[in-house]
Amino acid sequence: MNAPLQLPVEPLIAEEATIRILDQTRLPETAHYITVTTVEAMWEAIHSLRIRGAPAIGIAAAYGLVVAAGTSTASSRSALLADLQRAGDYLKSARPTAVNLAWAVDRVLQHVEASFEPDIPALKRRVRAAADAILAEDRAAGRAIGEHGATLLRDGAVLTHCNAGGLATSGYGTALAPIYVAHQRGVQLHVYADETRPLLQGARITAWELQRAGVPVTVIADNMAATVLARGDVQAVIVGADRVAANGDAANKIGTFPLALVAHALGVPFYVALPTSTIDLSTATGADIPIEERAPHELTHFNERRIVPEGVPVFNPAFDVTPARYITAFITERGLIYPSFDTGLADAVAATTEKNS
Amino acid sequence: MNAPLQLPVEPLIAEEATIRILDQTRLPETAHYITVTTVEAMWEAIHSLRIRGAPAIGIAAAYGLVVAAGTSTASSRSALLADLQRAGDYLKSARPTAVNLAWAVDRVLQHVEASFEPDIPALKRRVRAAADAILAEDRAAGRAIGEHGATLLRDGAVLTHCNAGGLATSGYGTALAPIYVAHQRGVQLHVYADETRPLLQGARITAWELQRAGVPVTVIADNMAATVLARGDVQAVIVGADRVAANGDAANKIGTFPLALVAHALGVPFYVALPTSTIDLSTATGADIPIEERAPHELTHFNERRIVPEGVPVFNPAFDVTPARYITAFITERGLIYPSFDTGLADAVAATTEKNS
Repeated sequence: MNAPLQLPVEPLIAEEATIRILDQTRLPETAHYITVTTVEAMWEAIHSLRIRGAPAIGIAAAYGLVVAAGTSTASSRSALLADLQRAGDYLKSARPTAVNLAWAVDRVLQHVEASFEPDIPALKRRVRAAADAILAEDRAAGRAIGEHGATLLRDGAVLTHCNAGGLATSGYGTALAPIYVAHQRGVQLHVYADETRPLLQGARITAWELQRAGVPVTVIADNMAATVLARGDVQAVIVGADRVAANGDAANKIGTFPLALVAHALGVPFYVALPTSTIDLSTATGADIPIEERAPHELTHFNERRIVPEGVPVFNPAFDVTPARYITAFITERGLIYPSFDTGLADAVAATTEKNS
Repeated sequence: MNAPLQLPVEPLIAEEATIRILDQTRLPETAHYITVTTVEAMWEAIHSLRIRGAPAIGIAAAYGLVVAAGTSTASSRSALLADLQRAGDYLKSARPTAVNLAWAVDRVLQHVEASFEPDIPALKRRVRAAADAILAEDRAAGRAIGEHGATLLRDGAVLTHCNAGGLATSGYGTALAPIYVAHQRGVQLHVYADETRPLLQGARITAWELQRAGVPVTVIADNMAATVLARGDVQAVIVGADRVAANGDAANKIGTFPLALVAHALGVPFYVALPTSTIDLSTATGADIPIEERAPHELTHFNERRIVPEGVPVFNPAFDVTPARYITAFITERGLIYPSFDTGLADAVAATTEKNS
């Protein structure tokens, strides 16, 4: 039951002295790790989606602070804290939607500030310890999400959108964790992966990591999911989330909302898998979640070829918000949460906060 | 009221001695016409989507028979008819879903067979006359679809999928015809064009022809339509159709079905615009419409770059079927058809057949 899952790949490798990140923009052609030695390089890696996925960018930001601590020349506690604060604010600005980024930065800073240790190396070790804890907890959360979610799955097909897999987290994933756990236990699963326009994380990344893990996967364009679901052999749609509001409205990769509407219309259960750190009780509803608009270039060009005529504008929101009523259940590390979601989400957050305090 | 519409572009130009086709696979970068001198070249142009859209490929097939007649060395009526029959069967095989292809071929053949004229040049002129009639009728139908559909539109936004525009027909379009007519009459329209994966007809072709016609257009990825419709400023979704069954189920470009589900859930009217030649009363329901699956390459690669890992399969249906219950109305050259559709569709076909006989 508790045999370790084979990690398909590690998006971030935190060694003693170096932080390395798998450059996901180069998948599936090349699995290339870049070594991150500056805060600016970490900001760029997050901003340019070399590492992406709400939990993974939280982890990346935490290790961005490790890099900041390592490169800080501060000789006093207050100067180091100021350096870290500045680096934290900067890292938070890399992407606006996922709450994990700010959450991870604040958690590391609080862990350092909580010590009145005047010794600089000791304070820097606290930065590292906080980042390591975030990584370890995310891995444990992924494993637990997988265990809870796997109880929902039997032999058959599952459909997912974007990449809420190992590469979006610390290794197990959120949406893919139940699939990995079920697969390891011998459940015969077949995954349909939406390619996920415009950046094709499903085609490039989800397909790549599932293939590596030996899980059969078929890639479809996003607009083919309705055809696949209408055939009746998909038992569930499972997606991740970038931020879940207190009422259960869920922000996730653009295309999640129409997929939820399609699943609802066709009677297919629609699950959102996430660690409780992605639940933002201070956001009342989805209407309060800021939605990042990304550069026109992502839609107007593909691999340097222009696909939209010169002079024609595009609209390129990176996320959408799925209203809570279209979500069958949330799969969290603390268990499954069914409607009404407000109480269940608050309880899950409270239980996690209690455990961490 | 009856001032001629400016045609944004002609997908097929039938001159006295040459048939030319705008190679739509090269849009938006290059507007290049190819001269078609063999039936094989016309088959290839249809098969490779150099010309696409249900009405346009019917017209292309008809002129394919003009080319067949021109190149036939038959010296008897029966030998010419055999050549044309062979060419017609071949042209029909270029694409399987759109009923217009077979419809146009059969209509040309019937027009030739109806004459007992033994004179070969006279028979060949009948082939040309039949093709010219199909082109002229399509243009008249497009204009009429535009007139009827324009009555539905007021200042504001419209969303469309794929290209059911001038380039999918003989110049005015089906889904875009109401937009062109309304625009010409001073209605302030803004069009959201789904890019339409995998072949991007919306981004490449719809945006191109709307821009040429001076209609403001914004391109979005298919999976962004729900976000756009949820904002509440889109008055209608208008799409074309490749085949409509007797009960009103409509086959159209992949992605139409989920768009209809989204529009339904969000309370946005969903219109299907088509000439009555696209209505196939011999097909009882959408379940009887064959759906073309196209080559994996369309999904696995983009502009020669591999975007799906080697060895991962794809599923690439070119069309989906929207059940009649999600369609607000059909916009045809014979007027608007509201539910229940079976009677309205049959009446429209009967009226057209009567007019043509």
